Amino acid sequence: MSVDIDSFIRVIPDFPKLGILFRDITPALQNPACYAEIINQLYERFKNTNIDYIAAIESRGYLLGAPLANKLNCGLVLMRKPGKLPYKTISEEYALEYGTNALEIHADAIQPYNRVLIVDDLLATGGTAVAACKLVQKLQGQIVGVAFLIELKALNGRQKLETFAPVTTLLQY
Amino acid sequence: MSVDIDSFIRVIPDFPKLGILFRDITPALQNPACYAEIINQLYERFKNTNIDYIAAIESRGYLLGAPLANKLNCGLVLMRKPGKLPYKTISEEYALEYGTNALEIHADAIQPYNRVLIVDDLLATGGTAVAACKLVQKLQGQIVGVAFLIELKALNGRQKLETFAPVTTLLQY
Repeated sequence: MSVDIDSFIRVIPDFPKLGILFRDITPALQNPACYAEIINQLYERFKNTNIDYIAAIESRGYLLGAPLANKLNCGLVLMRKPGKLPYKTISEEYALEYGTNALEIHADAIQPYNRVLIVDDLLATGGTAVAACKLVQKLQGQIVGVAFLIELKALNGRQKLETFAPVTTLLQY
Repeated sequence: MSVDIDSFIRVIPDFPKLGILFRDITPALQNPACYAEIINQLYERFKNTNIDYIAAIESRGYLLGAPLANKLNCGLVLMRKPGKLPYKTISEEYALEYGTNALEIHADAIQPYNRVLIVDDLLATGGTAVAACKLVQKLQGQIVGVAFLIELKALNGRQKLETFAPVTTLLQY
């Protein structure tokens, strides 16, 4: 009997600002059966894919990427906001509504030809995930997929990402 | 055959500032056997403890708390920096070397008498973890333990925390 994951996603109007309908995944994490179902569904999609590393995007990406890496028995590498990773990093900027931000990865986190699955919680415009793809490419890794719990279809992030690798999402709104 | 976790912890001098010896756990996460060993060791310590929720402290606490929650089949709740959680929150301040910061939790994340294990990557002075304990107490949860991968013994964080609950650490420096 599978759990209806969608029923554990809470919609919060006007967060982080007016006009945004925020999809809050915390109730899904609080429920052990629902959380296990999410990780299982991702596991089923990738159990036959050869993956060296899951690259998880800070910080909600860790919530999916970390248990999935354990279950798939592959390594976990972190993609973080600037200044957070302590060792030698490479960086990739991406656009925000106003201004830019950047994502960093340790320069020794991925070796050439390593097969990498990028994981985050939510696909919106895809800006952050595109930066994540470019980081993997800079290190000459091979992107085997980009996976999210939630996809906001109206924002068309999938289109941008599919030029890099296949996109997997469990819930679409 | 167990993995020597310590050999996967990288020491980085002068991060985030001069005079600090930073313990970088990313090589331990990159190695699937080492990462599995960390989660297994924590699992072994708590598999016979009755736990409703793991409360993981943002963001490196997620890296341990998320897989452990899955393995223990309990829920995961998040403790985050101010403004990150979208629903109604309660907050607890803690002192930094200069100034203060705060930790937040959703007000509905824990119900009275819920049994909660607090998880983070590293125990230094214990300031953040004490704030985490106070958040659980404010929601009338019961703290069954506070667990870390790494303990920096010279900073005496354990002493502060043991007034709240037993402290578990896998590596001591």
